[in-house]
Amino acid sequence: MSNPRRAYQWLRRHSVNAAHLASAMGLLGWDQQTMLPTKGHAARADQMAALTGVLHKLSTDKRIGTMLSRIEGSDLVSDPISTEAVNVREWRREYDQSVKIPAKLAMALAHAAAEGHAIWEKARAASDWSLFAPNLEKQLALAKEKAECLGYAVEPFDALFDDFEPGETAAAVEPLFARLRAALVPLIEKARKAGPAAPLAGEFPVDAQEAFLRSVIADIGFDFESGRLDTAAHPFSSKIAPGDARITTRFDPKDFTKAFFGAVHETGHALYSLGCPDEHFGTPLGRSISLGIHESQSRMWENMVARSRPFWERYLPKAKERFKALGDVRLETFLAAVNRVEPGFIRVDADEATYNLHIMLRFELELALFRGELAVNDIPAAWNEKMRGYLGITPPSDAQGALQDVHWSMGAFAYFPTYTLGNMYAAQFFQAAGRDLGDLGAMFSRGAFSPLLSWLRENIHRRGRTYRPRDLVRTVTGEDLSPEPLIRYLEGKYGE
Amino acid sequence: MSNPRRAYQWLRRHSVNAAHLASAMGLLGWDQQTMLPTKGHAARADQMAALTGVLHKLSTDKRIGTMLSRIEGSDLVSDPISTEAVNVREWRREYDQSVKIPAKLAMALAHAAAEGHAIWEKARAASDWSLFAPNLEKQLALAKEKAECLGYAVEPFDALFDDFEPGETAAAVEPLFARLRAALVPLIEKARKAGPAAPLAGEFPVDAQEAFLRSVIADIGFDFESGRLDTAAHPFSSKIAPGDARITTRFDPKDFTKAFFGAVHETGHALYSLGCPDEHFGTPLGRSISLGIHESQSRMWENMVARSRPFWERYLPKAKERFKALGDVRLETFLAAVNRVEPGFIRVDADEATYNLHIMLRFELELALFRGELAVNDIPAAWNEKMRGYLGITPPSDAQGALQDVHWSMGAFAYFPTYTLGNMYAAQFFQAAGRDLGDLGAMFSRGAFSPLLSWLRENIHRRGRTYRPRDLVRTVTGEDLSPEPLIRYLEGKYGE
Repeated sequence: MSNPRRAYQWLRRHSVNAAHLASAMGLLGWDQQTMLPTKGHAARADQMAALTGVLHKLSTDKRIGTMLSRIEGSDLVSDPISTEAVNVREWRREYDQSVKIPAKLAMALAHAAAEGHAIWEKARAASDWSLFAPNLEKQLALAKEKAECLGYAVEPFDALFDDFEPGETAAAVEPLFARLRAALVPLIEKARKAGPAAPLAGEFPVDAQEAFLRSVIADIGFDFESGRLDTAAHPFSSKIAPGDARITTRFDPKDFTKAFFGAVHETGHALYSLGCPDEHFGTPLGRSISLGIHESQSRMWENMVARSRPFWERYLPKAKERFKALGDVRLETFLAAVNRVEPGFIRVDADEATYNLHIMLRFELELALFRGELAVNDIPAAWNEKMRGYLGITPPSDAQGALQDVHWSMGAFAYFPTYTLGNMYAAQFFQAAGRDLGDLGAMFSRGAFSPLLSWLRENIHRRGRTYRPRDLVRTVTGEDLSPEPLIRYLEGKYGE
Repeated sequence: MSNPRRAYQWLRRHSVNAAHLASAMGLLGWDQQTMLPTKGHAARADQMAALTGVLHKLSTDKRIGTMLSRIEGSDLVSDPISTEAVNVREWRREYDQSVKIPAKLAMALAHAAAEGHAIWEKARAASDWSLFAPNLEKQLALAKEKAECLGYAVEPFDALFDDFEPGETAAAVEPLFARLRAALVPLIEKARKAGPAAPLAGEFPVDAQEAFLRSVIADIGFDFESGRLDTAAHPFSSKIAPGDARITTRFDPKDFTKAFFGAVHETGHALYSLGCPDEHFGTPLGRSISLGIHESQSRMWENMVARSRPFWERYLPKAKERFKALGDVRLETFLAAVNRVEPGFIRVDADEATYNLHIMLRFELELALFRGELAVNDIPAAWNEKMRGYLGITPPSDAQGALQDVHWSMGAFAYFPTYTLGNMYAAQFFQAAGRDLGDLGAMFSRGAFSPLLSWLRENIHRRGRTYRPRDLVRTVTGEDLSPEPLIRYLEGKYGE
């Protein structure tokens, strides 16, 4: 057996072993949010810290570097999309990122984030930016230090961006977002002038909601033998391991659409996770590509499928059987309600059109911070100015403005743009699927979701990390990433 | 800081870290039996194997031996029941046991057990001892090899016995069991002649069962902020960590007593687990003593409390409010039904009197195997002969005889006697509690369980592993372990 081959097998075993332990970590996290008794939380944090320690040791094991250097440049990895080449490329990336950050900086980052979360909670409650600013200042400085350790293509922001969206840079995203924004602002203005559709109010018993939801996500392709649906305060999707992807939702007895669309969204994530090839589990080829590509799957099922007219042609009659509160609501009225566009202050409550402007605002502010063009103290004013410019509204307080999101308080910069990238990927993939498969709407209206799911599995899921996001888009759709499919999709929907 | 003190602190950190990882393992196991989707089982086995590997490395870390030798004999451990001395004594015991078994033997044991479980399932289904015998032969030989590695007081069996019940030996248990058996055989014979009481048949809706059960175990002292109740095919109790003890049960819609007494039993385990001192979590002082002492707690709450007359004086009226099927059943009839004595073939279905004879039979056969007085092929005949002698019945097949239990197929020898030791401990503790607290029955009849629970916490739970089982019994009750309290308790109950 040649040396590179033997080194590869060592790396594979090491990687798979670490993945099984990461699955255990996944379960600790899932249980924490769904099942854990109140008084068990302190010990759970200790368990997660202990397992983090084990995983950290594994990911920084110096033998990884030694083994990689025995393979790199060898024949084993000459075909860049072979199993071995992809895994080695990604292992190198992960290993370099693990060892580039000094232990002292890693601890300072973790400490500032833990502190930041508590400070942010107080600042938001008091709606007082000045309470949060010093911590954010510190976290920003540490994040810049981290960026220098990691290295970057063009500017420091890219080092962090690359962590979430491999290969992506701010400079490459800016023109795409600018074009999208130019199209969205007038579209939203128009939709807004039409006024909000009447919301769907009434009593929606939780049992009936859950039964309806379970039947719909099963139709879509969620296999309850490979996953679970539970309730949690903050809905999420968690792939524990092959054959074990779990989603959660939160039921509002006055509005069935919240849990419904939330759970379909999480189903999209779970379908992607379960579609990654099990035979490569524990290696990069068995993993999803990026946050943005993940989001493209959840948004596609939530918005392009489950908010579409053909979907409700099939499911509205079924929903009416379950919920008396729907009465004899007409399909048009129902569709208007679940697709209404309404500028608001809060990102997580935003509709699928305005959502992207919430994201751009954050992306632009982060970029200005990293480029030294904006001071932390000036964020609230800059935030409100952009809200007026993009959505025509002014937050009445910082709690409903610059203090609304938890992410910065945990040191997560360059995370937000992956959401809008996800929407762009989704529209571009959906357009390509339609080209390949024919009339998707006609399929949805008769409950046939498996053609789309099979297409996604074949073109995206089964490929694991073979490609970087932009390369995947090019390979799957034959075109470079572009905002045009998303713009056309939204104009089509709101032009109706 | 002195060397022993520093070594002690290293050991404490090492032990606590391992305990947090063992908690993660506990959660993997709990989830496997309660929540895990069908298709997630294969990966779960891999996760548990990976974490076992981590735990094994920690428990055999050579630095443990080095650190222990820096402390042993020092002033730090001069008081044998000080925190340090108890922890060091137990760490030494655990470390020696971990390193005494060569890796090759450990692997052979694990392999034979995994193989054995599958073979046993087939053998039981076919009720064919000859299918299982060769594997049992192999496991017995490996167990004897393991005993030689571990070392023993009197005979090889003791090495394995000590693993479950520290300090216990077969020779010391035999006379206790002989005395108990001599009292039980005629008692059961008499109870049997009286004929079985009418069982409680009818419809017991699962929702009502669960509500009743939750209210009763909350009364007993189970804190739902520190634990959960779920359903599982094979009921169990699992302490994950401080503030997180989980029990499971299985509901039979035709008989509420199955889930009820099963769950009260598991509650007894959970109360013990939660009563171990949190401040010592992760060290021996924070752990329960042995399987037998654990079983004493579950059996006491199940049998001595929850099958007693005063208990049902309080709860039968409440049960009647929940279950129409109970009609106007009289207290006498109800008590006779839940305390009936009925010799049967299956241990797990046995009542609290005959159960001990099922255990003794197994203990005697295991001992004969280890002493070379019985051949594996002769087990079924010996089994049936003892069943006739002790319970007056002959199993119609080996599936209902020598093949009924899973334990031997997993290499668990010397495990069964801890059940009857548990019953003996329970009766002796219960007698001492009555002496200290006064009329326990009067307390139960008004729902006052906290005096007994506080007594158990003070005398048993909070002590962690300070004592070995026999020393604990002597310390708490002032007397050596004896079967007499159990005999008196059973004669009192069945003499009624």
